[in-house]
Amino acid sequence: MSASQIQMDPALPPRESWADINDDCPIFQSLGVLSTRSAFLVLREAFYGATRFDQFAQRADISEPVAAARLKELTEAGLLEKHPYREPGQRTRNEYVLTDKGADLLPTLLALFRWGERWVFGDGIRADIAHASCGASVDAVVTCEHGHRVPPGELRFRRNPARAS
Amino acid sequence: MSASQIQMDPALPPRESWADINDDCPIFQSLGVLSTRSAFLVLREAFYGATRFDQFAQRADISEPVAAARLKELTEAGLLEKHPYREPGQRTRNEYVLTDKGADLLPTLLALFRWGERWVFGDGIRADIAHASCGASVDAVVTCEHGHRVPPGELRFRRNPARAS
Repeated sequence: MSASQIQMDPALPPRESWADINDDCPIFQSLGVLSTRSAFLVLREAFYGATRFDQFAQRADISEPVAAARLKELTEAGLLEKHPYREPGQRTRNEYVLTDKGADLLPTLLALFRWGERWVFGDGIRADIAHASCGASVDAVVTCEHGHRVPPGELRFRRNPARAS
Repeated sequence: MSASQIQMDPALPPRESWADINDDCPIFQSLGVLSTRSAFLVLREAFYGATRFDQFAQRADISEPVAAARLKELTEAGLLEKHPYREPGQRTRNEYVLTDKGADLLPTLLALFRWGERWVFGDGIRADIAHASCGASVDAVVTCEHGHRVPPGELRFRRNPARAS
């Protein structure tokens, strides 16, 4: 077994015999919600402070129809929610704000940020994301509930002990 | 500012004025490599122990042409590498093994796994990923280089201090 593979609990049946292999997989289900690259870009801009339609289209560098489609889908999926606002002399418009469900994608986006930085960019990127109070850069770190940083060779795939069947 | 937004360093120019906003973004670049859901599924199965063509197609529940296309793309992008093997009486075939670049996507896949578990599945999933030596479940946790767990409201987007310009 390669050190990058996750150990499969020997009590599990062979993976070929698993039913509903994708329907039961949370990675597959997550990607059903995040089905396009532009969905990730709209969420990126929500984390970076965009709330208004024009900001999303311009900052994600996507067309207005694409921005409208993504904002609609992400709102329907519960990752963003609409809040009405009105500027003097204008009609009422909607702002789009991350819900708890959308905000919980931060570790995913940060992991993609750092992976791209390490493996796609050769000479470093212009931007960084840091811990405001101490100034150190942040990353999404594989950590267990006991607080250990877990290297890939020490991961085990098992039945969920919190689920009866 | 909402607590889920990342603080933008006030020294930065307004985001609308940034040139090359996507070309300079490591999230955008990462998603260029991971352009399809089936690419994530093939990588998932590589982490779960698949090495052979038939295993990838069957365990990711994708067609053989899709499996062949994804394995070729992921190999060309340097996430998997081919190792020849030969079984008695058979022709030489290739196994596909995660490279360091591919293996470094583990935090991304784990973050998607936990997000899907928390937000897409109502009543818990069958599987879990744990720290083999202590038995506690793992997650991808936003952590700074000083070892602090960083809540979303304490993140700051800034210029990369390690890059001259």
